[in-house]
Amino acid sequence: MNMMERYDSYRAKVELWLAGRFVPAQDQADGLRQAMLYTLTPGGKRVRPVLCLEFARICGLEPDDALPVACAVELLHTYSLIHDDLPCMDDDDERRGKPSNHVRFGEGTAVLAGDCLQAEAFAAVCDAPIPEADRYRCCRILSGAAGLGGICGGQFMDLNDTDITAEGLTATDLCKTAALIGAACAMGAAAAGADEDTVAAARDFGAALGMAFQCRDDALDGDGFCALLGPEKCREMTEGYTQDAYALLDAFDDTDFLRQLTKKLAEREE
Amino acid sequence: MNMMERYDSYRAKVELWLAGRFVPAQDQADGLRQAMLYTLTPGGKRVRPVLCLEFARICGLEPDDALPVACAVELLHTYSLIHDDLPCMDDDDERRGKPSNHVRFGEGTAVLAGDCLQAEAFAAVCDAPIPEADRYRCCRILSGAAGLGGICGGQFMDLNDTDITAEGLTATDLCKTAALIGAACAMGAAAAGADEDTVAAARDFGAALGMAFQCRDDALDGDGFCALLGPEKCREMTEGYTQDAYALLDAFDDTDFLRQLTKKLAEREE
Repeated sequence: MNMMERYDSYRAKVELWLAGRFVPAQDQADGLRQAMLYTLTPGGKRVRPVLCLEFARICGLEPDDALPVACAVELLHTYSLIHDDLPCMDDDDERRGKPSNHVRFGEGTAVLAGDCLQAEAFAAVCDAPIPEADRYRCCRILSGAAGLGGICGGQFMDLNDTDITAEGLTATDLCKTAALIGAACAMGAAAAGADEDTVAAARDFGAALGMAFQCRDDALDGDGFCALLGPEKCREMTEGYTQDAYALLDAFDDTDFLRQLTKKLAEREE
Repeated sequence: MNMMERYDSYRAKVELWLAGRFVPAQDQADGLRQAMLYTLTPGGKRVRPVLCLEFARICGLEPDDALPVACAVELLHTYSLIHDDLPCMDDDDERRGKPSNHVRFGEGTAVLAGDCLQAEAFAAVCDAPIPEADRYRCCRILSGAAGLGGICGGQFMDLNDTDITAEGLTATDLCKTAALIGAACAMGAAAAGADEDTVAAARDFGAALGMAFQCRDDALDGDGFCALLGPEKCREMTEGYTQDAYALLDAFDDTDFLRQLTKKLAEREE
């Protein structure tokens, strides 16, 4: 199986799990379920759950058994997109080519859909068919990436323009982007029962990949580090983080997929 | 120690833990921390964490060891208050005699403060000085009370006026109020390592108490069941739920505090 075949196979599993998790029902909260599903499926590239599934695999767990954990990361990511799009945040009317959640369902429902996706992310981890001790470790990792030192802290810095220096922008990206990609990798390793050093190495790899990903994003959009330091420096940063990511993979076996995916994400043109 | 002395002693522990958890720091997310603390302290009566600490105690755990779990429930409750007050939800400008969170900090920060409190609730559970297996059980209970079948589902029903029949209003109150009070009790028992039947009995007691609490609220405010079915029927419902709660306590020893607190909450005048 080449890299893209494996990627597509993981992605298909993720789509199936997500679609089956919130099946429409004739109850009074069904409108909320619909609002959650609207932004959840179809989604984006599913990079985070794919990374989680691959780390589970190279650490010795059947990817199917890691699916609820992998999808929990996607639930959390989707909540952050819905809230980031709100008028009081980035005020985006569109997301992935269709009206954003609050445009389609109203602001109140969009806030609740995000809130509920965060709660359901933790519920998904708690339902994974893995030992309870590993479910606990995944909950701990996820909560760390979700709170003050993760996406909430990062979005706050982003909203409050603390990212006008390279140091401030690095802090913002570490919290807003790198923490959750790091958590996705760490949760895959933890779900597989890997020891804490291995889990930490997976998280560090994901954080480096997340920074490379963000710098590449900045280069493509002409903002962030590209606007602040220029395209050449931004390209160097992408390369530096990518090399960090490769080096961190030396702690693992069977890393062809992760190396190829890292290269693909760092060199992507869209 | 009489009931109120014990209540006040629990409450003092909760205040101390909450104030110490989010200590101001000179970092870029400090404004978010301040917004969280603004609604968190001073707070309300702290009924939920007090119930959690007492269930921990009667199930054999030092209340101090249950503090992070008890306070996690208060963090989750506080997040729900901040989001419920938003203009796109209930649009309340005041909360506990001061400007509500979004009036003081702006809507974007208020949404993030709520989001972050939810994440930090799970992080708090994960930090409790109890066996990891019990931390896991507390995470599972908390996520159940936070999602579709809990406060998010309940707030959605409330916003969408599905509560115009007695059945609809009962469903709304069960999700919006009873689920989290039930979770507070269940998490206290689970933190103490109680078996699943005991945890379920604690949850059922909390849910009955939560419904009695809500019916009493309706009677005092003249809305909800009082407006729908009249004050006499609402009083009967409070009494019925209170009796259910007492009966569920028969599964536990040393329940004087809980019986007195139940009576106090069901008969309160404010």
